[in-house]
Amino acid sequence: MIIVMRPDSTEEDMQRVISRLSDRNYGHHLSRGESRTIIGAIGAPDDEKEVVAGQFSVLPGVERVVPILKPYKLISREYNPSPTAVMIGNAKFGAGHIGVIAGPCAVESQEQIMQTARAVKEAGASALRGGAFKPRTSPYDFQGLGREGLEMLANAREETGLPVVTEVMDVRQVGAVAEVADCLQIGARNMQNYDLLKEAGRCGKPVMLKRGFSSTITEWLKASEYIAAGGTLDIILCERGIRTFETATRFTFDLGGMVAARRETFLPIVADPSHAIGVASLVPQMALAAVAAGADGLAIEVHPRPDQALSDGPQSLTPAAFKDLMKRIRTVAEAVGAEA
Amino acid sequence: MIIVMRPDSTEEDMQRVISRLSDRNYGHHLSRGESRTIIGAIGAPDDEKEVVAGQFSVLPGVERVVPILKPYKLISREYNPSPTAVMIGNAKFGAGHIGVIAGPCAVESQEQIMQTARAVKEAGASALRGGAFKPRTSPYDFQGLGREGLEMLANAREETGLPVVTEVMDVRQVGAVAEVADCLQIGARNMQNYDLLKEAGRCGKPVMLKRGFSSTITEWLKASEYIAAGGTLDIILCERGIRTFETATRFTFDLGGMVAARRETFLPIVADPSHAIGVASLVPQMALAAVAAGADGLAIEVHPRPDQALSDGPQSLTPAAFKDLMKRIRTVAEAVGAEA
Amino acid sequence: MIIVMRPDSTEEDMQRVISRLSDRNYGHHLSRGESRTIIGAIGAPDDEKEVVAGQFSVLPGVERVVPILKPYKLISREYNPSPTAVMIGNAKFGAGHIGVIAGPCAVESQEQIMQTARAVKEAGASALRGGAFKPRTSPYDFQGLGREGLEMLANAREETGLPVVTEVMDVRQVGAVAEVADCLQIGARNMQNYDLLKEAGRCGKPVMLKRGFSSTITEWLKASEYIAAGGTLDIILCERGIRTFETATRFTFDLGGMVAARRETFLPIVADPSHAIGVASLVPQMALAAVAAGADGLAIEVHPRPDQALSDGPQSLTPAAFKDLMKRIRTVAEAVGAEA
Amino acid sequence: MIIVMRPDSTEEDMQRVISRLSDRNYGHHLSRGESRTIIGAIGAPDDEKEVVAGQFSVLPGVERVVPILKPYKLISREYNPSPTAVMIGNAKFGAGHIGVIAGPCAVESQEQIMQTARAVKEAGASALRGGAFKPRTSPYDFQGLGREGLEMLANAREETGLPVVTEVMDVRQVGAVAEVADCLQIGARNMQNYDLLKEAGRCGKPVMLKRGFSSTITEWLKASEYIAAGGTLDIILCERGIRTFETATRFTFDLGGMVAARRETFLPIVADPSHAIGVASLVPQMALAAVAAGADGLAIEVHPRPDQALSDGPQSLTPAAFKDLMKRIRTVAEAVGAEA
Repeated sequence: MIIVMRPDSTEEDMQRVISRLSDRNYGHHLSRGESRTIIGAIGAPDDEKEVVAGQFSVLPGVERVVPILKPYKLISREYNPSPTAVMIGNAKFGAGHIGVIAGPCAVESQEQIMQTARAVKEAGASALRGGAFKPRTSPYDFQGLGREGLEMLANAREETGLPVVTEVMDVRQVGAVAEVADCLQIGARNMQNYDLLKEAGRCGKPVMLKRGFSSTITEWLKASEYIAAGGTLDIILCERGIRTFETATRFTFDLGGMVAARRETFLPIVADPSHAIGVASLVPQMALAAVAAGADGLAIEVHPRPDQALSDGPQSLTPAAFKDLMKRIRTVAEAVGAEA
Repeated sequence: MIIVMRPDSTEEDMQRVISRLSDRNYGHHLSRGESRTIIGAIGAPDDEKEVVAGQFSVLPGVERVVPILKPYKLISREYNPSPTAVMIGNAKFGAGHIGVIAGPCAVESQEQIMQTARAVKEAGASALRGGAFKPRTSPYDFQGLGREGLEMLANAREETGLPVVTEVMDVRQVGAVAEVADCLQIGARNMQNYDLLKEAGRCGKPVMLKRGFSSTITEWLKASEYIAAGGTLDIILCERGIRTFETATRFTFDLGGMVAARRETFLPIVADPSHAIGVASLVPQMALAAVAAGADGLAIEVHPRPDQALSDGPQSLTPAAFKDLMKRIRTVAEAVGAEA
Repeated sequence: MIIVMRPDSTEEDMQRVISRLSDRNYGHHLSRGESRTIIGAIGAPDDEKEVVAGQFSVLPGVERVVPILKPYKLISREYNPSPTAVMIGNAKFGAGHIGVIAGPCAVESQEQIMQTARAVKEAGASALRGGAFKPRTSPYDFQGLGREGLEMLANAREETGLPVVTEVMDVRQVGAVAEVADCLQIGARNMQNYDLLKEAGRCGKPVMLKRGFSSTITEWLKASEYIAAGGTLDIILCERGIRTFETATRFTFDLGGMVAARRETFLPIVADPSHAIGVASLVPQMALAAVAAGADGLAIEVHPRPDQALSDGPQSLTPAAFKDLMKRIRTVAEAVGAEA
Repeated sequence: MIIVMRPDSTEEDMQRVISRLSDRNYGHHLSRGESRTIIGAIGAPDDEKEVVAGQFSVLPGVERVVPILKPYKLISREYNPSPTAVMIGNAKFGAGHIGVIAGPCAVESQEQIMQTARAVKEAGASALRGGAFKPRTSPYDFQGLGREGLEMLANAREETGLPVVTEVMDVRQVGAVAEVADCLQIGARNMQNYDLLKEAGRCGKPVMLKRGFSSTITEWLKASEYIAAGGTLDIILCERGIRTFETATRFTFDLGGMVAARRETFLPIVADPSHAIGVASLVPQMALAAVAAGADGLAIEVHPRPDQALSDGPQSLTPAAFKDLMKRIRTVAEAVGAEA
């Protein structure tokens, strides 16, 4: 870290900073410019950096503290420079393979999920999604079928062969979900539910971590570091839109954030245009844009009857629309040298 | 809800909407304007409104669906028009009483919390805060002392008489925290952790619900409805800053959002200028602004040694600065006809 | 518009609203639901709607006023349902043709702009961009070459045949810029500089209107209505990123906003990935994403020596990188059925 | 500035940076840490810093460039550490004096502005506001009375003695407005209309610069530097709300941004709760909050008949409500040691 002293700071202020650095076994490097003195801290143990920066920032005469190192390690390109692929069951995400996860927002009945699974399988999807436990903003909305929903997903996998991705919302569910799912999804609202991240990282299955809708790229990567610290690098990130002032779309699909994150991490990143845009008729263009931007996969909501869906109907594609989209996805994937 | 038909919609589209309304036992009211036909749904069962709006929005010929009723009930002014006060132990929040919750971000040691408790008690605080379980953005940061921290808080209460407010992050901790704390705090990152909200609502203690830093007023109120649905109306809301493009302050302190929320709910609302502004030297002005805007209480971070704090040092007041602030708070409270 | 009455409003409140509607020659339609009474205003003269909505919203007993019609007309799909193409010189934007505008942020010298013009022409660009008048956030930054810069652009056009797009910032410059440029660009910071919009609409040349970086889609369309009201429909919209909490990229590239705007207007929309993302190495992916999302054109910054550019160096492509990108743009355009 | 090299940068990359620094007559200071090499540039001519930072950021091996100095000078506390007061006619803003500017959004008629002027004068306002030239988001809205409106303002001043603050939107109007007004207001939408800023700075009258609704504190201060560079330090800043995801209020009133700006500049800062909150019934609480936070003045919209206002009716106080508010403002001002 670099400590910038105020123009009106005193020699004593500077000595205090240096003495504190030395107490913590940091070396230092002093640079006196015309209007600012700058103290570089050298060899700092990087596992306590943020709090240390805070502590130095409140010392007298300090203008600000500029961190130099990245606040994540295991999932960074410095640790592993080449992008890697992650498998969900037999579906590959990354390294030139674009996996497509499709299915309804929520599992509503055995028939609904089976019908969807058959349709998306036939269209060429590589994994099935569907929520058994649902986070809903109102306590009076449908809360999901729970364990029964998990069984229905397992049945759909058995018939279609599609691996299953489903959300876990509560640490107490991790075991039950991990028993059935091929990949655990951590939703946007739980991106900073750290106990859940740690448990998911220990469960033995790949984890898909959605970006919190107002989380920065850095916070998202730090959250994935929690999962990695739990013991797995089978982590897939998922961009699903951020909250901005614009309300014409449900969220703002941040493909720029996706490509910026890929510079930092070797983990594959999937894009979820359905939640981002929130309007079924605009999902296809956004899905193609994500592929062209280099997404390692897509998560797309498909429902046999959007006008009867118990959640997220307005953003769900019909099976026919999804089938048409899959063809276009393959064409664009090919144009950018990937395989869908 | 009101259903606005597209200008190019057909008579058949309109009949389909009406027939669907009738299937669901809604009456309807038709209004044909020069450029739009509008269908009002009458007598709709309001416990399924959001999903129903979504289902109608995808019918052919529908331009948009405008909800008319508020998506919360138990905590709304329609249900109970007069603001109420909530007690945390012997401290009153609301109805003209401004409670002041003070203490460190995290409990770091028995000595640290005891020293702080004595100082804030003497300065006139009405409750003690301090985190035993801490949500930290990096897995390498200090994670709190856990149950041991709860005991230290209980000891500080015993000596000073200050009731204790502390955060609960995980449904598995609700029982343990509720045994010790006089009020459970749900942090901003967990505002939409619905399982946690429900458990907290059932635990028998008052709950302080912080606004998610990118949650709208409506989402915040809906989240408090989850707690109310759990069985208690002893809920205190807490505005603690929202995330915006501005980074000169840690968050953007949304006092306008606080007063807008007070129009909607009878629940008391506390303001947390420390997390919002993130810089100790600016906390006092923001605390006074909150009092002048009509806050029912304040949550303020105080640490005996901000330059050694294990979290949030930069925004913590020293005991001396807090003592000075309490005097100014009382003066401004009096000027707006309240009591601190 | 629809007027929703408060649940505690009186019969008198309702009669007052109806009487005011009648004073303004509106008809009305009354709908009494179980918990709200709703008054629909019929046949309202739509040229005064916003202010009228405001006036009704402050009457006693009114909860809120919901506008039903769109606040723009000339540029809307209701007025003209089919997307149209706009020509800049001989370059076509829209109706399946993707125009590519390339060049430096600012014209710095005759040699610089000539060298760039030759390079982008050879790579396949369809128009040349370059600023003669520059809006700079600091008064101490390079402010552009002014009229001399316009001449240099004209010389580059003469040699290469590329039509010229350049920014106008001040109403006093409209005449001079329109004399030289093939298309006037209104920059993001001037999107709501209404006097400038009106003058530009009257100047006889096509106008490219950049979206303000914190303007909603609706405000952008309303601003284009100002230009249309000036007398021309040769308007091209340009999405160039919006300001959000995310700072990993310069702005947040809002391709979702672009496709949402296209639902509303028949005007072509160009995407500017350079300003949006702000980092040269990420521009190509974003350019391809824009093409896949259906952009009618691209605006891309190219500079012969980004490390010596007097503005926007970090986001400028070298001529070699641009040449490579043009090939990939053509491939993706073909994959989505367009021509670049 | 400080240049951080990438961990994989070469010795050659470093030498190139140093050689470029030397070409520009910068000294340098090298600090090799365990994982990063950092190069400090010393003695840089600060009038070209931003563009230079951009140029260095694109050199091979450079990870990022961290600017150390502030991008404004004339208006900064480094230049003049003590807050100063600015006079608008006989009304004082700053140095413990809270000036109150009151009046309608737009001048609508001689009677309307005269009636308002008398009422706000009697209630204790220190200056009169009213727009003669209005920036409206729709070309079909009322655009102001222009020069005739200026005359009406002058008449109201003559009778009441209140100095007049009015907006200038177009460089061509600066002369006419400066002839009549005691203070020129630059609106939020024109905060980065640099030609207008420069002209206003030269006109000989004080200038009130509203913060752009999506401008950072830094951009706001840089914009005021444009005015200062024009020749005057009689500049008043005005916080009027920023655009965020929250739509329950018209904008988000950023009092935290106001106090953060005051740390940086000696210029007085006025707060405009009317535009920020957008709802008349919430304006008083926000006005009091601004006073408690240390605002040097207030700008408040008052209209004799908000239900007939041609703009901003919903946020305008009636004269009676304003009179009541002025009393409360004085009480809170006294409580924080200021004078209103």
